[in-house]
Amino acid sequence: MPKQVDHRERRESIARALWRIVDQRGWAHATMREVAREATVSLGQLQHYFSSRAEMLAFAMEFAAEQTLHRVERSLSSLNRPPHPREVLRTVLTEMLPLHSDARATSRMNAAYVLEAMHDTTLQQQIGAGLRDGRALVERLIRQAMDDGHISPDRDPTVETDLALALTGFAALLELGVVEPQAALAAIDHHLDRLFRPAP
Amino acid sequence: MPKQVDHRERRESIARALWRIVDQRGWAHATMREVAREATVSLGQLQHYFSSRAEMLAFAMEFAAEQTLHRVERSLSSLNRPPHPREVLRTVLTEMLPLHSDARATSRMNAAYVLEAMHDTTLQQQIGAGLRDGRALVERLIRQAMDDGHISPDRDPTVETDLALALTGFAALLELGVVEPQAALAAIDHHLDRLFRPAP
Repeated sequence: MPKQVDHRERRESIARALWRIVDQRGWAHATMREVAREATVSLGQLQHYFSSRAEMLAFAMEFAAEQTLHRVERSLSSLNRPPHPREVLRTVLTEMLPLHSDARATSRMNAAYVLEAMHDTTLQQQIGAGLRDGRALVERLIRQAMDDGHISPDRDPTVETDLALALTGFAALLELGVVEPQAALAAIDHHLDRLFRPAP
Repeated sequence: MPKQVDHRERRESIARALWRIVDQRGWAHATMREVAREATVSLGQLQHYFSSRAEMLAFAMEFAAEQTLHRVERSLSSLNRPPHPREVLRTVLTEMLPLHSDARATSRMNAAYVLEAMHDTTLQQQIGAGLRDGRALVERLIRQAMDDGHISPDRDPTVETDLALALTGFAALLELGVVEPQAALAAIDHHLDRLFRPAP
């Protein structure tokens, strides 16, 4: 189905143009007109692929989540087989931080989207559902690691999942230069070293 | 100097109107015109107090930081004297989270400002300086607690400061309903219980 493939590719290339705008100039510039210019298509062509700004943003956000997942999978495939659960969790957490340009673009998309979602219940449901899926994935990983003896059984898996997710708070600290990338990674490694310590 | 007091009071009341807009309708609505309407002043009067939107936002943000500090001080004054450093750190961290309406308004102001600052070096310097001061305060607190034997000397104060600050990542998780307030507080308490454990 070459036509459908082309349609999807066009939407992805428009989504990437939107990411570049959000990354380089900010969310306020992510209008249909400016995205069309950045993607070098006419406004009419853009409207053929996305009937509204909301639809374009929703697709760009979903596509960013997919790309983050692909980055996680690529990083995981470079680890030893089978990867240690500590390395899996470290990969999931660090790929959500703005530590390189791809991750920075999706992290900024995410921050802008969270802010917009606070006053838009449809967006809130979409992004909330995605994050709850992410939370469930991290919790399964931690519970499995406890079952396999990598984490002490006296840890509370719910609490440890929430603490691991809260480490995404480094995103804003990195963006504002309050914490340097190496310090953020060192802190995450300290946290994981303490978590992945079998019962004495 | 009653006139200066009045000037300051008017600026604060305009800043509060701006917070209400950011809290209830979102950053995109924080224009001079809409803030004037919310503050029930004319656009001309607003421009008498703030010559530009940037000046108004900068003042509203500084005022939010001051109010957060006052909330922290009020909470600290309700603790035992002298307060245990664990309780001081807990108060500082939890007052930065959107757990009640005042804190939610300033937390949303903060999130919006961080996003805007990514593409505005003046804002970035202003907010970055404020956050680095906050970081320095938390680090002093942790180092003092280590000196006083409340935290084991084998902890790294830089790492522990960064991990404590990263817990502000709960702000977005709370806003999106991924983590409930009680779960966030339980996780923070677990983290602090492990940190404030003297050397065995």
